[in-house]
Amino acid sequence: MQEMLNHIRNNRPLIHCITNYVTANDCANLLLACGASPVMADATEEAAEITAESSALVLNLGTLNQQRFAAMLEAGASANQKGIPVVFDPVGAGASAFRRSAAKTLLERIRITAIRGNPSEIRFLADGCSSAAGVDAVSSDPVETLKSAQILAGHTKAIVIATGERDIVTDGTNGYLLRTGHPVMKQVTGAGCMLSALTAAFLTAAVDATCCASAVCAMGLAGITAANRMQAQDGNASFRNYLIDAFFHMTDQQISDAFDQCVQII
Amino acid sequence: MQEMLNHIRNNRPLIHCITNYVTANDCANLLLACGASPVMADATEEAAEITAESSALVLNLGTLNQQRFAAMLEAGASANQKGIPVVFDPVGAGASAFRRSAAKTLLERIRITAIRGNPSEIRFLADGCSSAAGVDAVSSDPVETLKSAQILAGHTKAIVIATGERDIVTDGTNGYLLRTGHPVMKQVTGAGCMLSALTAAFLTAAVDATCCASAVCAMGLAGITAANRMQAQDGNASFRNYLIDAFFHMTDQQISDAFDQCVQII
Amino acid sequence: MQEMLNHIRNNRPLIHCITNYVTANDCANLLLACGASPVMADATEEAAEITAESSALVLNLGTLNQQRFAAMLEAGASANQKGIPVVFDPVGAGASAFRRSAAKTLLERIRITAIRGNPSEIRFLADGCSSAAGVDAVSSDPVETLKSAQILAGHTKAIVIATGERDIVTDGTNGYLLRTGHPVMKQVTGAGCMLSALTAAFLTAAVDATCCASAVCAMGLAGITAANRMQAQDGNASFRNYLIDAFFHMTDQQISDAFDQCVQII
Repeated sequence: MQEMLNHIRNNRPLIHCITNYVTANDCANLLLACGASPVMADATEEAAEITAESSALVLNLGTLNQQRFAAMLEAGASANQKGIPVVFDPVGAGASAFRRSAAKTLLERIRITAIRGNPSEIRFLADGCSSAAGVDAVSSDPVETLKSAQILAGHTKAIVIATGERDIVTDGTNGYLLRTGHPVMKQVTGAGCMLSALTAAFLTAAVDATCCASAVCAMGLAGITAANRMQAQDGNASFRNYLIDAFFHMTDQQISDAFDQCVQII
Repeated sequence: MQEMLNHIRNNRPLIHCITNYVTANDCANLLLACGASPVMADATEEAAEITAESSALVLNLGTLNQQRFAAMLEAGASANQKGIPVVFDPVGAGASAFRRSAAKTLLERIRITAIRGNPSEIRFLADGCSSAAGVDAVSSDPVETLKSAQILAGHTKAIVIATGERDIVTDGTNGYLLRTGHPVMKQVTGAGCMLSALTAAFLTAAVDATCCASAVCAMGLAGITAANRMQAQDGNASFRNYLIDAFFHMTDQQISDAFDQCVQII
Repeated sequence: MQEMLNHIRNNRPLIHCITNYVTANDCANLLLACGASPVMADATEEAAEITAESSALVLNLGTLNQQRFAAMLEAGASANQKGIPVVFDPVGAGASAFRRSAAKTLLERIRITAIRGNPSEIRFLADGCSSAAGVDAVSSDPVETLKSAQILAGHTKAIVIATGERDIVTDGTNGYLLRTGHPVMKQVTGAGCMLSALTAAFLTAAVDATCCASAVCAMGLAGITAANRMQAQDGNASFRNYLIDAFFHMTDQQISDAFDQCVQII
């Protein structure tokens, strides 16, 4: 398996995140824990220019507004021109007409490398951004989710990552089913956002479904490590710290070992 | 006493927070610790729609700007139409002409269920948003604060929560005086914001002064639990984590027991 | 040496931070740990008014946008009129035309008390904001950095703080070289932002290069204290908490002792 973390630690890639203000700090610290260098910049005046200096771009729909959306379009065009990976996190994509329209436009105008969402978000995108769905993951049949992920991957040529109780990664042809992570991850804000940022960093090492699956695997491993550290009074706030801490110490070998245990080819 | 946390954990209510970016992450993690589902969305394009899908709304004046204020008006109208609780946190309401005007307008146009502020903010609102006062809690006479809270409750029909060394909760007729919490809470940013978000979650279980008093009581209990966990080198950053962690483990029985000890009917 | 922390703890100065949303929470908690009172307000409608009530102002270019930039100009003018210290943190000043222009305008229109940046940012400002440089610290020759810092101090009459492997503080005539801190500080987002906020708080006690050097020294001491607390599984997230916690317990005597060990007059 490609060495992801070593690549990141040796190259310190600049990851441009246009992301929500709720979890921006956690995304930045997680990227730093991996050895990457985060830059959060969401003004239209500079978004394209910052992307042009970066190694990957993250577009996250949380706390979307018109200005941040305009910056995403500028940055996405810049990323496509430069040929760097673009990760799209369609937070609550179906939750409002504004986000439905934004998600649709981003998919139409920007070539996305990877899409990371929960099953309801992935289904919504696969359905052509037409249905309405809430911000939260619906409990959903993995078979249905896989079908949606494959359709979405087929339409967009993006690698699709649907995370939930089980995680699915597919490029439309090849794919992985992963059984990893820990239930407390659902009770931490930004676990999804952090995985999207992590995926962008991993994609600077290799652009394929295996790379994305190893990012999912690394996040799951961090969740398990964090859960194992929890003591009697620890809750989701301590867990969040432990989750980021886990990346600070993680090695490619550990990801590789976890990969073999948690991943099934589909 | 009504079971608040069990209700929240069973129903996972969506709490729409239009709030400042300084403490948004802490508010989100606190709501998740309680079993609620936070959604932060502050664009005018979607605020009303997101509120219409939610079970409660929080309007917090921290880091206010014109766009976020416009979103509050849209969301507030949507909440009133749907009949869901609205919690107003008038952060620094008297600190600038902009906030004075915003606070006045919000109180005029939106039916507020509960107002949570420090004594100086509550006094400012009770005085008709005319005086100027700083962002910080003034050391104030509880009798004066109670009078202001009762006046404000009378004018607005809202349950008023004034938090300080002692906390006051009143619906204008009935009320509670609480003696709880821990001094370190003043040295953590967002303790007030978190309580406002918590109150919104509790109000999805019952809408009365007792419910709001139990939210104050739960926050105080979390503060005491967090302070008791502190070790020699721990400071306000660790305390913040412990405070959120405390909600992760809290039970309704513990709130009920604490309620009996810290609350006095006034 | 002037007592900084005692002054802050006794006076609880209001520090107005117009800063990025990535690290705003950390800056607020660090200021609270020191006994200061943070206020984050970045709307043009109120920036000048909030500054007029404050004891110091921080202007931080991270996540810059037009609105926040306009607020900085208003707040800066207000601070100059009132005569309170202004700290400028030129985050990524050379990274885009937008930031280059913003940095140039701020230096032209506002009398800055102290500038805190990494070597590449300080060099960029010293070069008249004409070159282009990335957001990250370049590994740079301390002699070159010192020269740039002295030029910048000469042009602006500001105290210049260049932080990197070694830290330089100069008012153009007198200066200090500091060897302190810990390498993990580079892997925490916002260590620079926090130092800028801390410097603003210290400047409420005394306005000179020694005061700024003692702020650098205090941050270095906190970094060492935090690193010493780290246990086997702790990473940068725990380190961040420990860093803020360290200020909660720090005394002026400890800063004074550390100062004698880590500072060299240049």
